Amino acid sequence: METDEQALPSVDGCCGDERKSHHTEKTKSNLISRLNRIEGQVRGIKGMIEKDVYCDDVLNVISSVQSALNGVGKMLLEHHMKSCVVERIQDGDTEVIQELLTTMNKLMK
Amino acid sequence: METDEQALPSVDGCCGDERKSHHTEKTKSNLISRLNRIEGQVRGIKGMIEKDVYCDDVLNVISSVQSALNGVGKMLLEHHMKSCVVERIQDGDTEVIQELLTTMNKLMK
Amino acid sequence: METDEQALPSVDGCCGDERKSHHTEKTKSNLISRLNRIEGQVRGIKGMIEKDVYCDDVLNVISSVQSALNGVGKMLLEHHMKSCVVERIQDGDTEVIQELLTTMNKLMK
Amino acid sequence: METDEQALPSVDGCCGDERKSHHTEKTKSNLISRLNRIEGQVRGIKGMIEKDVYCDDVLNVISSVQSALNGVGKMLLEHHMKSCVVERIQDGDTEVIQELLTTMNKLMK
Repeated sequence: METDEQALPSVDGCCGDERKSHHTEKTKSNLISRLNRIEGQVRGIKGMIEKDVYCDDVLNVISSVQSALNGVGKMLLEHHMKSCVVERIQDGDTEVIQELLTTMNKLMK
Repeated sequence: METDEQALPSVDGCCGDERKSHHTEKTKSNLISRLNRIEGQVRGIKGMIEKDVYCDDVLNVISSVQSALNGVGKMLLEHHMKSCVVERIQDGDTEVIQELLTTMNKLMK
Repeated sequence: METDEQALPSVDGCCGDERKSHHTEKTKSNLISRLNRIEGQVRGIKGMIEKDVYCDDVLNVISSVQSALNGVGKMLLEHHMKSCVVERIQDGDTEVIQELLTTMNKLMK
Repeated sequence: METDEQALPSVDGCCGDERKSHHTEKTKSNLISRLNRIEGQVRGIKGMIEKDVYCDDVLNVISSVQSALNGVGKMLLEHHMKSCVVERIQDGDTEVIQELLTTMNKLMK
């Protein structure tokens, strides 16, 4: 069954202007190719379950997808902190720290 | 770019016969629908990155995919332990314990 | 301020008999020496905070205590699974699986 | 066996001056009382192991110590980010971001 792109949270900032990320093309293609691989692995896990593959083998693929996803998260966090977070703090907008802490607590759960 | 199903480890058991999981159809469709949602979210994250969506919003979707994936892992682990692991131990095959520990250590990393 | 041993859950099994672990003396002394080191590090962290040591340095000691504690947990889990869990399953008492899953879910949080 | 305070990393900043944290007395006493409780629990775990308490009960105390330790880490991280990190970025010293990322990666492991 084909899956449509999941409806995702709209990104309009509360104060009307829209915050944007500004990755280089190189970073974007790196992130996209990692996510393509993750997407393929998730599809692969579905196939394993449909074919009644032994659970331990499926669990091992799940843990490698978790690691790959952590890798994407860490890469994004680094770019975010070295660009938007520094810029907003230098502009005097320290609200970004609480925003970052909230997101990090979810990632560190 | 369409991603082919990731080449996955072959599942031939060391002693020649092939270990299989034996989920009910209900469990299988539950797992598949969760994985469909995860696949859609991963595709959605790609779209967010292509559209330069603010990193914090992307990181929040990543952490919800991590939770969903953890949920699938825990569900599989429970089924595995309540079926294959118990059966193999009752058959005197305690090697399954070391196999389980190795997999759990990866999941608990 | 000296801290008394934390009041810990009583271990009387619901069915009156008391479940016991049965580690070798070697395992017990290994676990105790790891826990002595962890106790020393926790005391050290208190000292760092009292002396206003830079937070990043304190956070690094906290993460090494977390790793040491994970190591103790994994060691205990292995011993538990290779002794009590196998024995209880071979005795036909499969309740141990749900008990183990509940504990693992807390450790994997 | 009494444990001495663990020898901890010296805190001389690379550029000769010594970085300090600057917690309020209220924060410091909160952190110290949490660490006292953790120290007591670690001592309690040693007692459980010496008395051959059932492993599952010990594992449950370990997971609550892990949560308590995570709580201390998150509290320190928040204070660090809302004070030192903001101040150093506003002073133009963006090296603090890489320092923070390195520490966070260890905590998120």
